[in-house]
Amino acid sequence: MLLPEDFQYFKDSLARSDYSALRSILAEVNDVDIAELLEDLPIAQALLVFRMLNKEKALYVFSHFDDEMQQQIITAITDREVGAIINDLWVDDAVDMLEEMPAALVDKVLKNSLPEIRDRINQYFNYPEYSAGRIMTAGYIDFKKDITVAEALRRLKHVDRSVETIYTCFITNETRILEGEISLKDLLLARDDQPVSELLSSEPVYTTTITDQEKAAQLIAKYHLISLPVVDMEKRLVGIITVDDAMDVLVEEATEDFEKMAAIRPSEAPYVKTSAFKLAKNRFPWLFISLLTNLVISFVVDFYAPVYVAMPILVSFMPMLMGTGGNAGSQTSTLIIRGMAIGEITQGDFWRVQWKELRVCLLLSITLAAISFARISIIDPENILLALVVSVSLICGMLVGKTTGAALPLLAKKVRVDPALMASPIITTIVDVAAVAVFFSLARLIFGLPWEV
Amino acid sequence: MLLPEDFQYFKDSLARSDYSALRSILAEVNDVDIAELLEDLPIAQALLVFRMLNKEKALYVFSHFDDEMQQQIITAITDREVGAIINDLWVDDAVDMLEEMPAALVDKVLKNSLPEIRDRINQYFNYPEYSAGRIMTAGYIDFKKDITVAEALRRLKHVDRSVETIYTCFITNETRILEGEISLKDLLLARDDQPVSELLSSEPVYTTTITDQEKAAQLIAKYHLISLPVVDMEKRLVGIITVDDAMDVLVEEATEDFEKMAAIRPSEAPYVKTSAFKLAKNRFPWLFISLLTNLVISFVVDFYAPVYVAMPILVSFMPMLMGTGGNAGSQTSTLIIRGMAIGEITQGDFWRVQWKELRVCLLLSITLAAISFARISIIDPENILLALVVSVSLICGMLVGKTTGAALPLLAKKVRVDPALMASPIITTIVDVAAVAVFFSLARLIFGLPWEV
Repeated sequence: MLLPEDFQYFKDSLARSDYSALRSILAEVNDVDIAELLEDLPIAQALLVFRMLNKEKALYVFSHFDDEMQQQIITAITDREVGAIINDLWVDDAVDMLEEMPAALVDKVLKNSLPEIRDRINQYFNYPEYSAGRIMTAGYIDFKKDITVAEALRRLKHVDRSVETIYTCFITNETRILEGEISLKDLLLARDDQPVSELLSSEPVYTTTITDQEKAAQLIAKYHLISLPVVDMEKRLVGIITVDDAMDVLVEEATEDFEKMAAIRPSEAPYVKTSAFKLAKNRFPWLFISLLTNLVISFVVDFYAPVYVAMPILVSFMPMLMGTGGNAGSQTSTLIIRGMAIGEITQGDFWRVQWKELRVCLLLSITLAAISFARISIIDPENILLALVVSVSLICGMLVGKTTGAALPLLAKKVRVDPALMASPIITTIVDVAAVAVFFSLARLIFGLPWEV
Repeated sequence: MLLPEDFQYFKDSLARSDYSALRSILAEVNDVDIAELLEDLPIAQALLVFRMLNKEKALYVFSHFDDEMQQQIITAITDREVGAIINDLWVDDAVDMLEEMPAALVDKVLKNSLPEIRDRINQYFNYPEYSAGRIMTAGYIDFKKDITVAEALRRLKHVDRSVETIYTCFITNETRILEGEISLKDLLLARDDQPVSELLSSEPVYTTTITDQEKAAQLIAKYHLISLPVVDMEKRLVGIITVDDAMDVLVEEATEDFEKMAAIRPSEAPYVKTSAFKLAKNRFPWLFISLLTNLVISFVVDFYAPVYVAMPILVSFMPMLMGTGGNAGSQTSTLIIRGMAIGEITQGDFWRVQWKELRVCLLLSITLAAISFARISIIDPENILLALVVSVSLICGMLVGKTTGAALPLLAKKVRVDPALMASPIITTIVDVAAVAVFFSLARLIFGLPWEV
């Protein structure tokens, strides 16, 4: 791990052009940290240091750069250097990079890659976006099941650099169909002359190329795997997803859901690297939609103007009724959306969730209504009726909130709309309209307030 | 992976007391799936099947049970059986279980554990809650650096079951101070007579026992590790955290942050397993606080009653002004809180964040204010002044929202309050009060409205 003083020493050595000091720092420092170091330098200096790295280290460092830095490097280096990188980069990392690149740079990259590499990259782009196929790597080890432990270990000793993990090895038959998996730990602990088939235990956990990347990552988490095999429609092994990539997927998907729930268009770039204009652009849509839906609410409120002109105190309860209903709704929808994201709640749970939320809502709303009732009737003992109207409206608002909050995410999923994206604006609008309408109608009825001023 | 028909076959075999069929299913099925199968059975049946497992498998299955199931099993089995489990369970799993257990069961567990196991468990409880120390395991491999590769591999062949991973081995000196790490891959690829010291590369990434578990998990994600060494104050190696546990930590912490941002007290149990009463209890506090803070807002609104009685149309803009300000605030606070959780934003970024949010807010609020202005003056060309008041109030409300949204999470962290927990209620209250006060004061001033009815 790098300390600030290490970074200073690195910059000083660079300023002094002390290449031997630089080389010894680079040898000591982790690839992830080198990538971070270089991202903080002006591109000309970063390029200078990048070119000092040996080929293998350069590849690792390059794969750790963020999108912006990768693009800057590709722009700055020669065609020959581009070729050297792209032809040795792991295909999943290359695909990840190309997804975010402007067309001109994509051309520069593909033009300089070997035909077979280009073919492999294009094949990846055939898998759906955010699918397991897009993030898998072909850098895995597979054996036929009739070889011995000694033979397997001998082969492992000669794997090339492109293999991402040797800790789980896969067993396939003649037609490359996945039959099982063996951990390196089991291989090491076994007798040399044992056939590997004796080490096969339970049916391996696997996923398919077109499965959603989040589902694949959840399998890795659930079964505590180092790598997850990915098969095609015929159950032929075509790649693996490693645990580190799965971890990235889960963290990114959670961040995206946070953004969507806060009504922000998700972005891949970290906050500090995003410009104010870009941030504003990502936040604009839902603020704009919220402005439009508030038009509806305004009309409803305006419709009741005679009621609140006759009884102005009613207005002071509006924020509370809308707020409590909205909170009740977002509490429910957040729990449901997160439960769906981590696979704890499925479509099949629809009625179970509705029934549970109904009970939760009755418990909460009756308690809160009782508190409100007590509060208002203590402050203003004359006005038991007002206390009653507020309490009943509170219960209705929360019921509407909890019901839409429980139903919407599951319905959204059913019609294949992203639940996280749509829940919050719709719930707020429905709750606000319902709370206002119930409250003022009830007040008009109970207090016999006029329809016109 | 288990299909529903497998589960049915399992239940049928159990109903028929077909023990040989059961045994062959149990041999085939992954430990994680067996745990899930048993959790779905009545406890008497689950116990019957659990007792059919061999000792090693039983331990793995037990460690995958959820808290409720572990407690049911511990309650149901004999003291002798409790001893057999607890004395062989990984200490971090035992600690995890005991944390959630009622006192009577904790007694039953500790009474039946060996003195040295009890000591080790107690030692874990000395580490702060949610620290790296609490989730580490002592099941790691360490070598002195003067041994050869052949010797290291020989030792790996004789590790016992308690070792959680052999894929990263650690090098310590005579006083157990961490000096480096070596991957099993490098050991396998090296010559047999090489000293392991030649394989040591860059300074290892490590954490300390008292570091927050989320920080430790982030290191594993950032550096793509299989395991992270944990050292004490003297940099002596005392344990490791494995990547699967780190993944669980990151997913749990994200879920907790979702709950907190939706104003729900975090709970460890999944939604479907939590009772309606418990769910209501977790959601009550902030709904109650929201009721209280809305008292303040009510007073402010009521204070302006003469203003809106004189000009009732003003009320219809209230929901929009409060809503837009609140949304603007929660967009910002969510981004900041998430950025802090994944380590992208730190205390040091305070002014940078404020400055960026100010620009974002000006871009957004001026655009939205212009749209509102246009909309109101088109519908009601007489009332340019009203359009102006609404637009200016909109800008003010959003400024208040963005500023509190950007400042609060970082300030909360500074005074060691959980940012996710407190942001939402406080921002809403501040924004609502500010929006209402600015709007009605401005309207009163511009239209010369009365102070009293």
